Amino acid sequence: MSFGYCGKILRVDLSAMKTRIEEPPEMFYRRYFGGEGFVGYFLLKEIARGVEPLSPENKLIFAAGTLTGVPVGGCGRHSVGSKSPLTGGFGEAESGGFWGAELKMAGLDAIIVEGKADKPVYISVAGGKPEIRDAKHLWGMKTLECQETIRQDLGDSLVKVAQIGPAGERMVRFSCISNDLDAFAGRTGLGAVMGSKNVKAIAVRGDNRLKFADPITVSDIGKWVRVNTPINNAAMHNYGTASVVKPLNASGGLPTRNFQSGSFETADDISGERMSETIVAKRRSCFACAIQCKREVRVTSPFAVDPRYGGPEYETIAAFGSNCGVNDLAIISKCNELVNAYGLDSISTGMAVSFAMECFERGLLTKTDTGGLDLRFGNARAALTLIEEIAERRGLGAILAEGTARAAKKIGPAATEYLITVKGQEMPMHEPRLKQGLGMGYAMSPTGADHCHNMHDTSFTARTPMLAELAPLGIIDPLPLNDLSQAKMRMLTYYTKWMHFLNSAVCCYFVVMYGRVGFERMTKLVNAVTGWDTSLVELMNAGERVMNLARIFNIREGFTEADDTLPQRFFSKHTSGPLQTAVDPAIFQTAKNNYYSLLGWENGIPTKAKLAELGIEWAVDH
Amino acid sequence: MSFGYCGKILRVDLSAMKTRIEEPPEMFYRRYFGGEGFVGYFLLKEIARGVEPLSPENKLIFAAGTLTGVPVGGCGRHSVGSKSPLTGGFGEAESGGFWGAELKMAGLDAIIVEGKADKPVYISVAGGKPEIRDAKHLWGMKTLECQETIRQDLGDSLVKVAQIGPAGERMVRFSCISNDLDAFAGRTGLGAVMGSKNVKAIAVRGDNRLKFADPITVSDIGKWVRVNTPINNAAMHNYGTASVVKPLNASGGLPTRNFQSGSFETADDISGERMSETIVAKRRSCFACAIQCKREVRVTSPFAVDPRYGGPEYETIAAFGSNCGVNDLAIISKCNELVNAYGLDSISTGMAVSFAMECFERGLLTKTDTGGLDLRFGNARAALTLIEEIAERRGLGAILAEGTARAAKKIGPAATEYLITVKGQEMPMHEPRLKQGLGMGYAMSPTGADHCHNMHDTSFTARTPMLAELAPLGIIDPLPLNDLSQAKMRMLTYYTKWMHFLNSAVCCYFVVMYGRVGFERMTKLVNAVTGWDTSLVELMNAGERVMNLARIFNIREGFTEADDTLPQRFFSKHTSGPLQTAVDPAIFQTAKNNYYSLLGWENGIPTKAKLAELGIEWAVDH
Repeated sequence: MSFGYCGKILRVDLSAMKTRIEEPPEMFYRRYFGGEGFVGYFLLKEIARGVEPLSPENKLIFAAGTLTGVPVGGCGRHSVGSKSPLTGGFGEAESGGFWGAELKMAGLDAIIVEGKADKPVYISVAGGKPEIRDAKHLWGMKTLECQETIRQDLGDSLVKVAQIGPAGERMVRFSCISNDLDAFAGRTGLGAVMGSKNVKAIAVRGDNRLKFADPITVSDIGKWVRVNTPINNAAMHNYGTASVVKPLNASGGLPTRNFQSGSFETADDISGERMSETIVAKRRSCFACAIQCKREVRVTSPFAVDPRYGGPEYETIAAFGSNCGVNDLAIISKCNELVNAYGLDSISTGMAVSFAMECFERGLLTKTDTGGLDLRFGNARAALTLIEEIAERRGLGAILAEGTARAAKKIGPAATEYLITVKGQEMPMHEPRLKQGLGMGYAMSPTGADHCHNMHDTSFTARTPMLAELAPLGIIDPLPLNDLSQAKMRMLTYYTKWMHFLNSAVCCYFVVMYGRVGFERMTKLVNAVTGWDTSLVELMNAGERVMNLARIFNIREGFTEADDTLPQRFFSKHTSGPLQTAVDPAIFQTAKNNYYSLLGWENGIPTKAKLAELGIEWAVDH
Repeated sequence: MSFGYCGKILRVDLSAMKTRIEEPPEMFYRRYFGGEGFVGYFLLKEIARGVEPLSPENKLIFAAGTLTGVPVGGCGRHSVGSKSPLTGGFGEAESGGFWGAELKMAGLDAIIVEGKADKPVYISVAGGKPEIRDAKHLWGMKTLECQETIRQDLGDSLVKVAQIGPAGERMVRFSCISNDLDAFAGRTGLGAVMGSKNVKAIAVRGDNRLKFADPITVSDIGKWVRVNTPINNAAMHNYGTASVVKPLNASGGLPTRNFQSGSFETADDISGERMSETIVAKRRSCFACAIQCKREVRVTSPFAVDPRYGGPEYETIAAFGSNCGVNDLAIISKCNELVNAYGLDSISTGMAVSFAMECFERGLLTKTDTGGLDLRFGNARAALTLIEEIAERRGLGAILAEGTARAAKKIGPAATEYLITVKGQEMPMHEPRLKQGLGMGYAMSPTGADHCHNMHDTSFTARTPMLAELAPLGIIDPLPLNDLSQAKMRMLTYYTKWMHFLNSAVCCYFVVMYGRVGFERMTKLVNAVTGWDTSLVELMNAGERVMNLARIFNIREGFTEADDTLPQRFFSKHTSGPLQTAVDPAIFQTAKNNYYSLLGWENGIPTKAKLAELGIEWAVDH
């Protein structure tokens, strides 16, 4: 390890209003890789059992990864982690954009925020040295205004800002941390933790040029990725993430009306193709990426949408579209603008709205509860109102702002039947009755229902490019989508280890997997950046390591096997439509046990041998 | 998998005197890789529980691997397997030389020999099609004469011959199968199985040019290996395997007088350096190899040694040298010639002699038992006589020919104290009190005491090139030789998986590991040869797969945890010399349990999940 890859971590102690720099040894970087790996390490090591997520004792970790900021497509991501105020367990999410790369260029790999400030502050590492700055004037601002104000304050229009919106200030339990206005550490309520610490934003800027052990190989791989990934992942290049709307709808996998159905009669109206024909103004990108799956939209009627907030991605389109019975891309774009401006997770917010709509239709909520809103499915304008109410904790929004799991308890026992959460987190827009491997991934993910710690089950049903991508792991035979066999669980565990590695590196799976960068090239890239002589075996182990750290964190916080499950709805079929399979409870239970066994978990608990294999025997003592 | 890597397996049914060709699908090749992988598969699938190893119901499998015959150093090896007449369990050994490469050039990947011929035969695939030929005239011949006669018979001096000598004909339980006169599938008594089937030899010859998916990469890697491995493994290039005599002796790890000691007072006399100065005539090589660790010796006094049998390697030098108290390289060379001519495993034969010597010195054997031989340690000429007696099953040799474990029972209960076997197989020349990781490997190896399914523990004590070779697996910190910690067991299981992969491929670890070819280049080579897109993850899994197949075979044949142990001697210290550590029984037991756990074995039995992970759920039904 002669290149000596390692770096700096900034600790910000808000209670003492002090900052300090730590420089962990190279082996720390090699073992945990950054991103989710760092989050797993620090949460388990440094947060005591039972800490209240919104208390000063919780910590908030922003972590770039080994590959963040490397000028290769997909390497612009960072991870944010904390004990989740939404689930009470392992909280973590990754974000794209440019902030993570800028953090690296500011000379930092991670920022650990501890304690609580007396009054609103923001953290700046834009001026060469870390500062804790007053944020009184920023408090209450929506994200666009806040970013612009910070840039003016610091006199630098290129400062990158990660921040909370009004929703995070009010500690909405599914508020997010946004950066660059259109990228989000969206899930698990990290914005609320930031709000609880009175931190409005973290501004970063630097001109540290990243050094690589083998810059020529880095450059070669960067070129390969730039040329090939937009071709390999042409669907997302051409139509963005919304490219999946039509195929999912055709197979009954487009979440519709709070997951009551999987096919939406007017799905074409919210498809990627329709979006391109109508509202798309241009592509947008994360750092160094040529796929450019993000979109900017031009919407002027029935109301103007600010293009600086970007356009809706698939999750947002399905969450506020089919899943709320809405087929109007303009209104969906407005929903997108609102959640981005207020700093709300678009998945959980859309799901909160659809949950409220189903409760309304089933008579569990009345117009008295809704303040007069007609919350029937399809009432898009009601959705817009509800978003603002959630962000501002007004009316029904105040109840929903606690997350749908807590809201269901308030609304009444009958409401739990319509609750679509795992471990308290609302489900993303992928139907577990269609993609049953991914469904098991929802049940198992340390963050609850989450597609970012999960297998992308769609494409393994045939000898597709995606399946070919798994061949180097010896996974060659296609398996049905609705399969929960031992072989499928094997595929899921392998894929999930790799996803956790990518979340540690931190890299985009739209580029790496869908863009077919390949395991070998990724391994080579890690080596070229760090000077290590790692192998895919070590990278997969790194992924498995953080899975185990997160698992142990959750066990410590009281989660058990019983929490590894799916909402009741998914054990029954859709009443109509092309998808006529449900998750079979007995098969699901067997598959769960198989999944545990494949990972070396006994009754869902990592064995000592597994921890030893991964070199984290220390984890059980924390 | 568009290149379509696959090939042909020849079945020879001796009872029906028929041959047939099978063409397994590509996935079979990809899952089992060849060599030991094929052996593991066929033994478990096709040999019924409880079959007597020397009966017609046993099978004998000769298997080249995915890389055998590829023109890259280290790729000239093949594997032979059967139910072992020595251990009663999984029998397997690999051999170098040229035979395996020639088998591939004859268009075959493997030969499975079944049943029993009425009278001596040999098998030829030298003339384009398989033949079972009469071998009456060959029976009784030593190996050199036999090879020459077969070449004359077939009218082709380039025919490669794998064969048994007189020892195999007489079913000596540690007789070997030799090829090219100086390469051996030495361990586990495979020669006896061949003898029991009345098969004297298998002659192969062909001019099939091997085709590769990416011939340029194969050629590039071949060139790299040719240039670099003799430099990286300079010790073996310069002094052969005997280069280790002096350093081992200095650390108390040179087996001396039946493992009573680890330092031999005249070790310098049998060192690689001394050998080079005195008797070495030239280097010899296996197929395509530039390290050329084999030696040819010129010895004329006190008797002539036929140079065509090659020179003694380290195992033979220690087994007949220090371990018998002998310090005369000329006599050791003669021992080498004899075991090679008779077709005896030099390790087990040397150990049989040293065992008899200790029994003699301790009064358990008298001159009446030895037919007048003075079997004190150091009596080299007595060793020469005893080798012939063993090969011909005469006198004390008839008792020892059954292997020392059975011999000890005949000699009397007191003799078991001096028995140095695991699972009935005699120990190679590596001291488990010094190299404790390798010692655990002896206890765990499916073939009993065996260094070829094992970790090479020597070089991990410091940041040596060998340790650097393991870094891509994330094994970076050096560990003491006498360590049996969880971390050491992790290192052992990782290394052992890789060794079993190499035994399946089939490749030489002197080239791959000591020559520092590296995991990445090996993976690339597999892909270039096959057209697959495999990764180190899949290769490691392939190694682990055969470990599990072999384990299940042994469990089926009655082996238990209790058989995973070391001879009593190793739990006590040497009485003198530089090595003052013993294996601690309690630590050893803990380490055993850790080893099992690391592999996903419960009480030494592979779990269903482990088999599922490796895609061999079928194994428990066989």
